[in-house]
Amino acid sequence: MDIKNLPVAQETPATDLNSINFREHFPNSKKIYVEGTLFPDVRVPMREISLTPTHSMTPGAPDEENPPVVVYDTSGPYTDPGYAVDVHHGLPKLRQPWILNRGDVVETTPGRYRARPGSCVTQMHYARAGRVTPEMEFISIRENQMREEMLERMAQSGVPMRRQHPGNDWGASIPPVITPEFVREEVARGRAIIPSNINHPELEPMIIGRNFLVKINSNIGNSSTTSSIEEEVEKMMWSVLWGADTVMDLSTGKNIHETREWILRNSPVPIGTVPIYQALEKVGGKPEELTWEIFRDTLIEQAAQGVDYFTIHAGVLLRYVPLTANRATGIVSRGGSILAKWCLAHHQENFLYTHWREICEICAAYDIAFSIGDGLRPGSIADANDEAQFAELYTQGELTRIAWENDVQVMNEGPGHIPIHMIHENMARQLEWCGEAPFYTLGPLTTDIAPGYDHLTSAIGAAMIGWYGTAMLCYVTPKEHLGLPDKEDVKAGVIAYKIAAHAADLAKGHPGAQLRDDALSKARFEFRWDDQFNLSLDPTTARSFHDATLPSQAAKLAHFCSMCGPHFCSMKITQDVREFASRKGIAEDEALRVGLEEKAKEFTSFGGEVYKKV
Amino acid sequence: MDIKNLPVAQETPATDLNSINFREHFPNSKKIYVEGTLFPDVRVPMREISLTPTHSMTPGAPDEENPPVVVYDTSGPYTDPGYAVDVHHGLPKLRQPWILNRGDVVETTPGRYRARPGSCVTQMHYARAGRVTPEMEFISIRENQMREEMLERMAQSGVPMRRQHPGNDWGASIPPVITPEFVREEVARGRAIIPSNINHPELEPMIIGRNFLVKINSNIGNSSTTSSIEEEVEKMMWSVLWGADTVMDLSTGKNIHETREWILRNSPVPIGTVPIYQALEKVGGKPEELTWEIFRDTLIEQAAQGVDYFTIHAGVLLRYVPLTANRATGIVSRGGSILAKWCLAHHQENFLYTHWREICEICAAYDIAFSIGDGLRPGSIADANDEAQFAELYTQGELTRIAWENDVQVMNEGPGHIPIHMIHENMARQLEWCGEAPFYTLGPLTTDIAPGYDHLTSAIGAAMIGWYGTAMLCYVTPKEHLGLPDKEDVKAGVIAYKIAAHAADLAKGHPGAQLRDDALSKARFEFRWDDQFNLSLDPTTARSFHDATLPSQAAKLAHFCSMCGPHFCSMKITQDVREFASRKGIAEDEALRVGLEEKAKEFTSFGGEVYKKV
Repeated sequence: MDIKNLPVAQETPATDLNSINFREHFPNSKKIYVEGTLFPDVRVPMREISLTPTHSMTPGAPDEENPPVVVYDTSGPYTDPGYAVDVHHGLPKLRQPWILNRGDVVETTPGRYRARPGSCVTQMHYARAGRVTPEMEFISIRENQMREEMLERMAQSGVPMRRQHPGNDWGASIPPVITPEFVREEVARGRAIIPSNINHPELEPMIIGRNFLVKINSNIGNSSTTSSIEEEVEKMMWSVLWGADTVMDLSTGKNIHETREWILRNSPVPIGTVPIYQALEKVGGKPEELTWEIFRDTLIEQAAQGVDYFTIHAGVLLRYVPLTANRATGIVSRGGSILAKWCLAHHQENFLYTHWREICEICAAYDIAFSIGDGLRPGSIADANDEAQFAELYTQGELTRIAWENDVQVMNEGPGHIPIHMIHENMARQLEWCGEAPFYTLGPLTTDIAPGYDHLTSAIGAAMIGWYGTAMLCYVTPKEHLGLPDKEDVKAGVIAYKIAAHAADLAKGHPGAQLRDDALSKARFEFRWDDQFNLSLDPTTARSFHDATLPSQAAKLAHFCSMCGPHFCSMKITQDVREFASRKGIAEDEALRVGLEEKAKEFTSFGGEVYKKV
Repeated sequence: MDIKNLPVAQETPATDLNSINFREHFPNSKKIYVEGTLFPDVRVPMREISLTPTHSMTPGAPDEENPPVVVYDTSGPYTDPGYAVDVHHGLPKLRQPWILNRGDVVETTPGRYRARPGSCVTQMHYARAGRVTPEMEFISIRENQMREEMLERMAQSGVPMRRQHPGNDWGASIPPVITPEFVREEVARGRAIIPSNINHPELEPMIIGRNFLVKINSNIGNSSTTSSIEEEVEKMMWSVLWGADTVMDLSTGKNIHETREWILRNSPVPIGTVPIYQALEKVGGKPEELTWEIFRDTLIEQAAQGVDYFTIHAGVLLRYVPLTANRATGIVSRGGSILAKWCLAHHQENFLYTHWREICEICAAYDIAFSIGDGLRPGSIADANDEAQFAELYTQGELTRIAWENDVQVMNEGPGHIPIHMIHENMARQLEWCGEAPFYTLGPLTTDIAPGYDHLTSAIGAAMIGWYGTAMLCYVTPKEHLGLPDKEDVKAGVIAYKIAAHAADLAKGHPGAQLRDDALSKARFEFRWDDQFNLSLDPTTARSFHDATLPSQAAKLAHFCSMCGPHFCSMKITQDVREFASRKGIAEDEALRVGLEEKAKEFTSFGGEVYKKV
């Protein structure tokens, strides 16, 4: 299969995906790998951002080192200078030996596997059996982000340690250090999932759960009216570059199977799908013609390809459908509406619900996690938290427990459009009804009046629900409600959601979450402009915004900026204040005790100008 | 004074401000005016968005009218087709007769006024004396936004009424209808302010208070390194066009006085300043050379021009300055740092604090409101809610009470950089310590790691603190920390904050806030694309995003869109469901009772396809 020979939408210029330089977006960053101790072939990728020293304000004193900051890295091998990208070949299959070593799979077609009859190959199964897998050690290292090492290097360099705010985690149980054993326990009790189909050995394991870093998902995929395969693969690459932890391929147009194959073979993150979309294509787009058999075959087709999680709208029950009739915006989920139409046409219960145990068996044979869909989520503020929505959520809980009986990993999808004050109720009910299975929400959007800006209306809700305990936030792009996202929209959505997820981590008091904020603020305060840019989520944009007003390189060394100019620079004046305080050895209360008239004189004679012309 | 003859930054093309067509940004909108009943010359501007009818799905049935939606309009005469813009002449002085009729002012220079000796001319003074002013009636009409009339027209047209979510207002006292008397009461007790200098008769009165719609402020202004007067005037116009309720001119560069004059004469919204900036220019940029006399003269100069509110950093006390020495980012407020440096240099108490009663007297003579500055606000997550910040807030409360003794209107400025879980404490302390004076916050930014996107990091915090009770949200643009905003940044900041403010209004359950959401969602659900665009905060952007994938006019009449294509259109399927339900007269429980096999047959034979080729 050659991507060049596949059908491509007209007017789309062919992109040479192998020649994109992804590293240019993160100056002064380098890819590092941390090795496992339980499993020596575990190599966990991270991104290390090196910083410049702080120039001492004390004449003659040496510069102070700023140790590098290590950040979570979802970008896969694409940002490894030692890796030659070849999308026709796909990514290295790093998990292949781990999977085969477990000795519980059989090869169905060359290079494709399923569980040996009688075996269960889910991470939940291993966890419940007390086995720590290489995936679990990988995740424990990844979640810790070398925090202990960073703190030690900061201490050695004499960087002032900022106390991290303790946070309010709303009853979560976040340990100070993530151990492989903690990962195992969380997966065993269903409070976290490791989406990792045995046929997607290219993925770098990650975890979704309330006691881990908040994750984000990006949606890509074509429709019958737009997009080529190359564009979708590029959107996937672009997603992981900017920080998407998982990607959903929501294609509904041509070449669904081929598009997914290209995405999976080249994706370092778990890939989710909504299998009913492809099943519907198989019956010519007529929901009433869907059958269990067609759907089952579609599941197996996608399972063999390596899809890591399936959105399945098994909670859209026949009796819930009429609850939507008087809504402002009825059913807005594609999957939900397909199932609703099927239920009404046949007047039978949703076949995903009636066949749920068989679906569980399929997923258990490949380790595909469920993302139980919220087909009746509200599509407008008016419909928020209504009976239809909560009825389905309650049924999600029932389905969750059955999946767990089959050792299948589960998360639950959530809304949608919800005004701010009604967000918490969603989290509280999901925790209660779904037994703390990870919650995975779309936004929520906090108002309907801003099409074109729904990455923003929803980042507000996402940050809040992430704080309350949602484990993964499904992004919304500026094109929501208006069209399919292009590459730039994908980036805008991912960045907005990285912000929301990080704001939630800070609010939960996630250990080490504040280190990057502290390092960036220190760089900002010390006018280390390049460090400020390089520590940001999007260095290129930050740099270009700065350069728009003060483009010269000299300006990046200046102890002021374009906002205020030198006279009004509060940071410069503060440096004077701090310098003054440190020279006089002032601690907080002392300032009131010591004879202060004398200080006033000294300060004036000192001159108080640390600004140096550049 | 001719704007053409004023110094203009090099390379800035001269803009003909008189020829800008502001109306093109809001298609199908018209300017309307609602007249007062107590004061017949009160004419309150609003924007009415007309909508297209809903095509009935029942063959032969008539189309259903969708009555227009009326929205709050800050754009001033610029969007009135009957008004010829002339920035050299300035806006009409609509409040002039109201001010002169009160008989309590004297003319100081031609066309400039102050209070007659022995008189107080503040809205607070009138309110406490039991007088309802034209400004108060104007505001009461403006805040109601014709909600009662809209609801009546909706009822007449048979538009389904959506119940608005009741909201959680955190102890606010929002009445169902705003009366002039309610405005008076709120101003009298200091819980709301009407910034309205007697020398800014061009402004259209607005109110800032916890029991009214949440307002937003945009900051403009040059620095010594950038911008021309024309650019700043255009940014002001652009601010009010997109929805800024007040504008602060934070200029620190050349032509401070002239820039402000042009802005004031052309601004339909209150203008705020930070007078210490201009005072500092007068002493060559050396904070230690500031004196009370220079500052006082600056206040009077700006008061005579018509500035509506002053940010005054009177709470930065000498003893608080050393509390900032060990902060991550010291003092980041320009005003705060100037005062801190002055305090240290002289080792005297902040002269703004010691002269506070004299400052109150000046403000009372022109009706200038205070925005008591938060000079020690945290500039990083690390410094959030620290001792320095809260010490100053406590002193703000003391200053607030003294201002009230002088009948001067007051609001309090708030942070800054605050992680999500620590935002509520700010609101709670401000309410307690400052006697419910309106809170006016910058953001807060909920993380430090996203320079280039701080409109978004802060919109999250702004929506939350707005919900908790903040009366006005000071915007942050994408250029924050990096450079001064240009026109497009101003728009991005205003839109982000309109979203935050509206999300807060919905969450507080502000009466009528949901009407626009409901109308837009109805348009979206009924595929009335143009109505969806026109009801949005930024119709042009919404339309262009849609057209990027499906540009033809026919597509805007299509009953599907580019996201899913016709087969997967959930809204279309829902219409089938709803149609089915209404044909069968199904209410919620009935669906379970009636013989359902029969329904299934009917649905299939009905065909279920309402999609019409366009």
